[in-house]
Amino acid sequence: MNQRLHHFSKWLQEQHLSFAFITSTPNVFYLSGFYSDPHERLLGLLVFPNEEPVLVCPQMETEQAKRSGWAYSLIGYSDTDHPWELIANYLKKLALPIEKVAVEKSHLSLERFEQFSTYFPACTVVNAEEKLRELRMIKEENEIAILRQAAALADFGVEVGIQAIAEGKTELDIIATIEYELKKKGVREMSFATMVLTGEKTAAPHGVPGLTTIQRGDFVLFDLGVVLDGYCSDITRTVVFGTPTDEQKRIYETVLKAQLAAIAASKPGTAVGTVDQAARQMIEEAGYGEYFTHRVGHGLGIEIHEYPSMNATNPLPLQRGMVFTIEPGIYVPSIGGVRIEDDVLITETGVEVLTNYPKELMIV
Amino acid sequence: MNQRLHHFSKWLQEQHLSFAFITSTPNVFYLSGFYSDPHERLLGLLVFPNEEPVLVCPQMETEQAKRSGWAYSLIGYSDTDHPWELIANYLKKLALPIEKVAVEKSHLSLERFEQFSTYFPACTVVNAEEKLRELRMIKEENEIAILRQAAALADFGVEVGIQAIAEGKTELDIIATIEYELKKKGVREMSFATMVLTGEKTAAPHGVPGLTTIQRGDFVLFDLGVVLDGYCSDITRTVVFGTPTDEQKRIYETVLKAQLAAIAASKPGTAVGTVDQAARQMIEEAGYGEYFTHRVGHGLGIEIHEYPSMNATNPLPLQRGMVFTIEPGIYVPSIGGVRIEDDVLITETGVEVLTNYPKELMIV
Repeated sequence: MNQRLHHFSKWLQEQHLSFAFITSTPNVFYLSGFYSDPHERLLGLLVFPNEEPVLVCPQMETEQAKRSGWAYSLIGYSDTDHPWELIANYLKKLALPIEKVAVEKSHLSLERFEQFSTYFPACTVVNAEEKLRELRMIKEENEIAILRQAAALADFGVEVGIQAIAEGKTELDIIATIEYELKKKGVREMSFATMVLTGEKTAAPHGVPGLTTIQRGDFVLFDLGVVLDGYCSDITRTVVFGTPTDEQKRIYETVLKAQLAAIAASKPGTAVGTVDQAARQMIEEAGYGEYFTHRVGHGLGIEIHEYPSMNATNPLPLQRGMVFTIEPGIYVPSIGGVRIEDDVLITETGVEVLTNYPKELMIV
Repeated sequence: MNQRLHHFSKWLQEQHLSFAFITSTPNVFYLSGFYSDPHERLLGLLVFPNEEPVLVCPQMETEQAKRSGWAYSLIGYSDTDHPWELIANYLKKLALPIEKVAVEKSHLSLERFEQFSTYFPACTVVNAEEKLRELRMIKEENEIAILRQAAALADFGVEVGIQAIAEGKTELDIIATIEYELKKKGVREMSFATMVLTGEKTAAPHGVPGLTTIQRGDFVLFDLGVVLDGYCSDITRTVVFGTPTDEQKRIYETVLKAQLAAIAASKPGTAVGTVDQAARQMIEEAGYGEYFTHRVGHGLGIEIHEYPSMNATNPLPLQRGMVFTIEPGIYVPSIGGVRIEDDVLITETGVEVLTNYPKELMIV
């Protein structure tokens, strides 16, 4: 068994669980290497404390699962089969006591839980999600290698976007150019809807891009990332189109100092909260505290938001192999907003910044 | 109350339900006009048999909900509030008997159901999804107007894609060009991952586009759509790059005849299955029956797959206001595949085809 399945099985042993039934695309991918979005059809991975795991998927996807490297048992079902019956029969053959089962409570639907309960009426369920979040939080070398490549593509996306800035261009024009160039490099999917915001709209941390035309003196904010081999990147850069005002410069320099302070604070053993506070303190000292309205960042991996949650009160010590964003921002209504975001990796002794696009105030 | 809420409330009365708690983005949008994807946060709509409905959403979204036209009660909660407690208090004030509640069983997670059960332990739940699918199946005039515009943008996407075909281009190059031009027209979101397939890859109904270069003699298949004001379009066209073989021509003409036959069969009162069979018969008569491996189409609206399911055994009579795709295909391994897809609307007396890009065999 791979390390991930091995660790998860060990947890099942420790918790005296009969088995785990994992059904979300990211967790099945993490544990099995098989990435599949079966829509309304059932995808599931049965993991046991002391038996080999088994993957459950539509018959037409079994070949793809094997090509993804799945070397254990497979239950493939056709559209006329009843997958829960096949699962129940498989478990019956194993003749294990079925008393307590781990599922993903925020993912398993009530409908599926009712089907499950029909076959295993006396069984109690516990949540496997916290354990899987913890396992996924520490990245392995092969995951880090992909995250590095994904970060480089995010750098490229920002570069394309900045070069596309020109009089008369709209936010959607620039997004179109960025995604066009990334697709030509083989990128199939962005990790979230690409954000290009201009002028006052930059003051909304979750603004929606549209047909707004760039004006001279505007902040232009890029927030984007790609999905590469199942892993996400996420970068934000903010530039000025035309001549910045003194206040724009002051805001920018404050965010940059805050971001560098948070990066400098990131090393093994430091509490997550300390990283947030390092950035927050700089911004508060410059008098913009009330305009930094969100946590300093989020973990990054198979999903765009993972553990650790980089908020001011999280006492978790940073560990080697954690990958997360550092993205302080200042959003002043009617002036605009600046955010600077990098993806970073905690190393043996400190931190490696995975995204590398320059961060000095850029005047386009 | 709007017609949709009115019909849904009436169903709650008939079924003697205490209330419905609707939490999926599409159904909340359908009933309330408010489109929101709150990610892990709770979005909910409480609908009663005899009381005004109430919308539950994060505090920061309440203004947007009002701007969307929501004129009834709102429960906004902050990140420190407990939304279920606010809901329970609201219901307590109404002093209704709470015995049987409708939820979306394939959407409500076990975690949310457990929270719900903490507050309403004696309550049974039934599924509201079938009723909502039925309501959403019959489109109103304003929905049809948007679907028509979304279809026109899909036509435009195919036109851009066909013009982008050239020696040396890859599938992803062409997708990039299509989405670039649509974004410049203000399209923020495609209704699914745009598909451009070439050569033998066209033989896979759900193939994945990549860096394959177009070769002379290839089929090139486009399957794409946009989301406009919350509604989806979906079109497929297949062309030949270079000179088609006789077999390619025969396959194409068979699919086109089948597609036209299915459109001709579509009118009020005809069973859904008859539409599928009209296309299937043409393809079987031409000897390609085994290569038409999917249903003839699917309903279309807020989601890309809705009711009615256009399969051969569905006895449901077509009704005015239904919108669905008609998309027969023939997929011959090692030769390639052809699919032709339009979006159609059932009218008072027959059918209106919403997508209008030409369908004669096009040689590029």
